[in-house]
Amino acid sequence: MGGDLGPRVNVAGALIALAEHPALDILLVGDRPSLESALACHALAADYAHRLQILHAPSAIAMDARPSSVLRGKADSSMHIALQQVAEGKAMACVSAGNTGALMVLGRQLLGMPPGIQRPAISTAIPTRQGRCYMLDLGANVDCEAEQLLQFALMGSAMVELVDGVKRPRVGLLNVGVEDIKGNLQVRRAAALIAACTDLNYIGYLEGDQIFQDQADVVVCDGFVGNVALKTSEGLARLLSSRIRDLFAESWYARLVSLMARPLLKRLRAQMDPVRYNGGSLLGLQGTVIKSHGSADARGMAYAIARALREAEHGLAEGLYTHMTARMAKAATGHA
Amino acid sequence: MGGDLGPRVNVAGALIALAEHPALDILLVGDRPSLESALACHALAADYAHRLQILHAPSAIAMDARPSSVLRGKADSSMHIALQQVAEGKAMACVSAGNTGALMVLGRQLLGMPPGIQRPAISTAIPTRQGRCYMLDLGANVDCEAEQLLQFALMGSAMVELVDGVKRPRVGLLNVGVEDIKGNLQVRRAAALIAACTDLNYIGYLEGDQIFQDQADVVVCDGFVGNVALKTSEGLARLLSSRIRDLFAESWYARLVSLMARPLLKRLRAQMDPVRYNGGSLLGLQGTVIKSHGSADARGMAYAIARALREAEHGLAEGLYTHMTARMAKAATGHA
Repeated sequence: MGGDLGPRVNVAGALIALAEHPALDILLVGDRPSLESALACHALAADYAHRLQILHAPSAIAMDARPSSVLRGKADSSMHIALQQVAEGKAMACVSAGNTGALMVLGRQLLGMPPGIQRPAISTAIPTRQGRCYMLDLGANVDCEAEQLLQFALMGSAMVELVDGVKRPRVGLLNVGVEDIKGNLQVRRAAALIAACTDLNYIGYLEGDQIFQDQADVVVCDGFVGNVALKTSEGLARLLSSRIRDLFAESWYARLVSLMARPLLKRLRAQMDPVRYNGGSLLGLQGTVIKSHGSADARGMAYAIARALREAEHGLAEGLYTHMTARMAKAATGHA
Repeated sequence: MGGDLGPRVNVAGALIALAEHPALDILLVGDRPSLESALACHALAADYAHRLQILHAPSAIAMDARPSSVLRGKADSSMHIALQQVAEGKAMACVSAGNTGALMVLGRQLLGMPPGIQRPAISTAIPTRQGRCYMLDLGANVDCEAEQLLQFALMGSAMVELVDGVKRPRVGLLNVGVEDIKGNLQVRRAAALIAACTDLNYIGYLEGDQIFQDQADVVVCDGFVGNVALKTSEGLARLLSSRIRDLFAESWYARLVSLMARPLLKRLRAQMDPVRYNGGSLLGLQGTVIKSHGSADARGMAYAIARALREAEHGLAEGLYTHMTARMAKAATGHA
């Protein structure tokens, strides 16, 4: 039911995902009449009817609801019910385009967290020169102690290892400079903790522009900084593409060039498309939960579902749980 | 003497600035032999000899020197001597491509600060959809209390009013969401202080992507966040332009389109060029000090000099001093 564009787009995204992933079954959780009417718009919906099920939810959490009110509220919202499916083992993952704060607190309440994790973090893939990196946290935690940044490093590293199969992923810590003396107290303390952790392949501080330079697989930062950096990048990308559009429309010559450049620009868009990287992983829950961008279209929602499928298939949540449990045991015996 | 590319580029930038601004005189401060040999490379140097003077400095501050060691060190560096010229009224502004932290602490020591300012901030112009906005702080202060964010708002607003002639500049506060409950404690407290300040035209919270949407003239944030956001933008812009370059080189067709698109892309680059916005203002000093980007080329240095000239001509440092003094007087009598 969530997202700026409502269930119609989410349903369309679910159908794209079903078409692309033959092993996938989907439970649509929300207002049954809305979901049925959204399905009725799609000629192909009948083809996937056997892999698609509607679970009615009498209410939905507002996009602007406060997390605290969500916890006190009734448990009959689509978000509650969807997360409950994961908690009860009836679904392998939950994907939502709804209220991020609500998803976070309900996820903690209904799924719980692995040992040694204080708070979940949101992570997403960012395109880089040759591939991608994962950045976390992206807004779940606006104030982070050094210990939490270490936990982000552990979770991000485990995710890249488990889901992408990268051995000893390179972990960088976002800072305002690469020299030891740079940064605030939390970041400098976190650097010491991360560097001391033998489970991690720490490569040191990274500055903002190095995010895109394939230096790290995991970029760790607090949620305030990560959120601002990600949104600033989105804003700049939009500014550039609007400037290019204006430029290509301003004369006959420009329009001709634009026509000729179309196939090239289409490929660039495909490479850089934020939609392609849609789907923020809520790391640190005992279950797979993916947050789709509020403004994502059907294609974006399909990517978020694909991400959820991928994490579930690789057993990320279980792997993270095992990893953290082993770590806590080691720490308890003094070998951390 | 500063910058990644050394005095040669700085001297070339000075000559461009002299050619473009007939009212400008320049004192080159640094190692005389290096500066003379850099000048000797330029056929035009002789034409500007009467507006150009070399002031020998026996030493230079290393790019990686710690600010604390700079304060304890000898006072014969090029940065010391250049700032001293401003302190003694022999120069109207100082431009440096050197160590930012050193420039900041020496600027405070040699020039002092207006009343009511705890620490200076770095501000620079950012291109937006229709024009530009100014963001501060960009890295001088990695930990900021709410009161400091208010001071940044006051300084940024005064700068835009004095230098750009904008009446009641719109001030936004960078945050992870636009709702009241978003953000960390410092930001929420700063919002209350800024909103309560009748001298300011506060428009509320801004998210990262809104920086580019012409919603504010001044965007306030702490130095950690501002530095990461700015550098992330630079990194993304470089990533996009390298992707476009690769795409335009990969086939004969692409190369043809690239050739045809060249005049258009050149205009885009000119519009968006970070070099055009080179020159970070050190606000909150009793004198005009501009930091040129360490990697700026001669054209970038010329822009930084032009910015210094503009601030000096508009009496920014004096205006800020008067403004803050009046404000402190008002506050003392309880009318702030």
